[in-house]
Amino acid sequence: MKRLAILGSTGSIGQSTLSIVEQFPDRYSVATLAAGRNIDEAFTQAERWRPRVVSMATEELASYLEGRLRTARLDGIEVVHGTAGTVACATHNEADFVVSAIVGVAGLEATHAAILANKPIGLANKECMVAAGEILTAAARERNVPILPIDSEHNAVHQCMRVGAHGEVKTIWLTASGGPFRKTPLEEFEHITPAQALKHPTWVMGQRITIDSATMLNKGLEVIEACRLFDVPPSKVRVTVHPQSTVHSLVEFVDGSILAQISVTDMRLPILYALAYPERPASSLTFDLAALRHLDFEEPDFERFPCLRLAFEAAEKGGAHCIALNAADEVAVDAFLKGHISFNGIPRTIEQVLAATPEAHPATIAEVLAADQQAREQARARVAGS
Amino acid sequence: MKRLAILGSTGSIGQSTLSIVEQFPDRYSVATLAAGRNIDEAFTQAERWRPRVVSMATEELASYLEGRLRTARLDGIEVVHGTAGTVACATHNEADFVVSAIVGVAGLEATHAAILANKPIGLANKECMVAAGEILTAAARERNVPILPIDSEHNAVHQCMRVGAHGEVKTIWLTASGGPFRKTPLEEFEHITPAQALKHPTWVMGQRITIDSATMLNKGLEVIEACRLFDVPPSKVRVTVHPQSTVHSLVEFVDGSILAQISVTDMRLPILYALAYPERPASSLTFDLAALRHLDFEEPDFERFPCLRLAFEAAEKGGAHCIALNAADEVAVDAFLKGHISFNGIPRTIEQVLAATPEAHPATIAEVLAADQQAREQARARVAGS
Repeated sequence: MKRLAILGSTGSIGQSTLSIVEQFPDRYSVATLAAGRNIDEAFTQAERWRPRVVSMATEELASYLEGRLRTARLDGIEVVHGTAGTVACATHNEADFVVSAIVGVAGLEATHAAILANKPIGLANKECMVAAGEILTAAARERNVPILPIDSEHNAVHQCMRVGAHGEVKTIWLTASGGPFRKTPLEEFEHITPAQALKHPTWVMGQRITIDSATMLNKGLEVIEACRLFDVPPSKVRVTVHPQSTVHSLVEFVDGSILAQISVTDMRLPILYALAYPERPASSLTFDLAALRHLDFEEPDFERFPCLRLAFEAAEKGGAHCIALNAADEVAVDAFLKGHISFNGIPRTIEQVLAATPEAHPATIAEVLAADQQAREQARARVAGS
Repeated sequence: MKRLAILGSTGSIGQSTLSIVEQFPDRYSVATLAAGRNIDEAFTQAERWRPRVVSMATEELASYLEGRLRTARLDGIEVVHGTAGTVACATHNEADFVVSAIVGVAGLEATHAAILANKPIGLANKECMVAAGEILTAAARERNVPILPIDSEHNAVHQCMRVGAHGEVKTIWLTASGGPFRKTPLEEFEHITPAQALKHPTWVMGQRITIDSATMLNKGLEVIEACRLFDVPPSKVRVTVHPQSTVHSLVEFVDGSILAQISVTDMRLPILYALAYPERPASSLTFDLAALRHLDFEEPDFERFPCLRLAFEAAEKGGAHCIALNAADEVAVDAFLKGHISFNGIPRTIEQVLAATPEAHPATIAEVLAADQQAREQARARVAGS
């Protein structure tokens, strides 16, 4: 029985993780839940899963949840809050495995703490790896703590990597849907509206990641994540535009063999893989190969998607540049969604912030968070001035 | 340094194996060569590779080769002949690895002898596995002797199988080009000429295997081979028509993940994989993923390709039925190439022979060869009578 700490339990990945626990009650149970702000869902989850600890974003939300649990006579569930609360969930002595699924750098400290506490990680938070991947992977390697990727691309890469030795990998090919603007005339990009950009062709996701898919910045973050997770230089990671999103990624080996992973586009599959690794429990997530007709693969257009170019440049520089890429993008996407900047303003803002970022390699989580704040302020200033 | 016994050295796989030895002189050397009938090529290979032993098909050819070696002052190369000669090559005490690439059941005894002598096998001879797979795999398992498939499909499956446990495999998907008659109107099948059938869309191969590709009997033999090599029932093996022949096969796991192997259509790749396993040396056999545009996958049409249906039926029955399938096909293809029977006559002949074959499970190689002879006689009688 694997007892889970689920960080980000009320989000999409958190809920999918709980549906896996539901499906495999003999394999998994819930130790702790870090829930954030959704008090109703947090209560429902606490009632259903009876975790040892639930963490909420603020003290106020925590005391409100405590009250509701008391009224419902649900005893023995400790309620905590804030970053310390999330860390408490991540490092709880009854947690055997930590699902890190808090969006953004908010999950960073807890993920780091979990690694230091020797907890295997299922990582759904790519910002963690982009901002602090050098620190996290070093800590994990030192302690021999596995980090299993819970996103379809890196999970696919993790699977394909098993078919050869690390030194035999020539290229990691990350597939990208190409987003909704793969064929939109370039001159129309300046006038793309948030509503247009929020329509993703294959995946239903949160707002920021949907815009990041449209700019392909998301794929750029994944390039950086792949470098860190699989300990390869950016020159060994390439992106291929695959609009069907059925090949989740590929690994090319030096002998000429390419391994590809194919499956339905359902996050429960990489979650189950991460939870059960190295086993594969039977699931009902069947891909109908017989129904497969066409798979397209195209070179990404770096002129159309400057964010992808910026990400590769940041990947080469590492450290502060990767932090700034992610932070500036988050600010720029928010400004775009609010109508303050144009779609093309997103890469423009990021490029300006990156140009103003000194080369540096933060060595602690505190330094990472400081660099992140600095980049956000830079980005906010650029956005306000544009 | 791995010292190779190459059975079928003058054939296409044998020559490709030697080109790998040429390319990796620090990894591989030649211990013995079983060459068959091509005396010029046998001489050239003996001169180039200085093996300990060369085997020819007949005593006459052997003594002729001996004469030429003497004239050329190439000492220390023993020349042997016939089945005993092939067995001597396969079991030579200086051979560390046996490439079994003699076409047809002719390679069966030597392959069996090599397994009994604890030599790891690179198997390019599918008839061996179809006719005597039950015996060969039992012997190999008992001695823990690896059998590494040297054909693109099973080699791909071997790679994909590494991504999960044996019990986690749901379906082995063998890809098939579909041959030249994938879209030919059914009413024209009766009038297909040998010249038409010998034009294979993607691979350049020998005559029988090209016709077997056109009837898809070849894929049927591969289904049986997959059952034996990977120890799965026929219900776990399926065929998908993939005209581009770039995905060499796929393995679907119970959790819903499908792993696919992609590479150039060049036999040196599976040969190198088998020779080097579990390592992957760098090769120049690069597949241009960026140039990849479309991959089609279609259900095979069992009405169009009755040979495939017959193969699945034989796979279910095992033993004598698999032997008869292969033997009857070889006779029928020969008759078709000579203009004695029509293209549709191939499956008709096989079906008649299978119908007359009693269920039996030959337990020795001698019994296998007897059943093979019996089926051939049956097939010859059918062909002569048609």
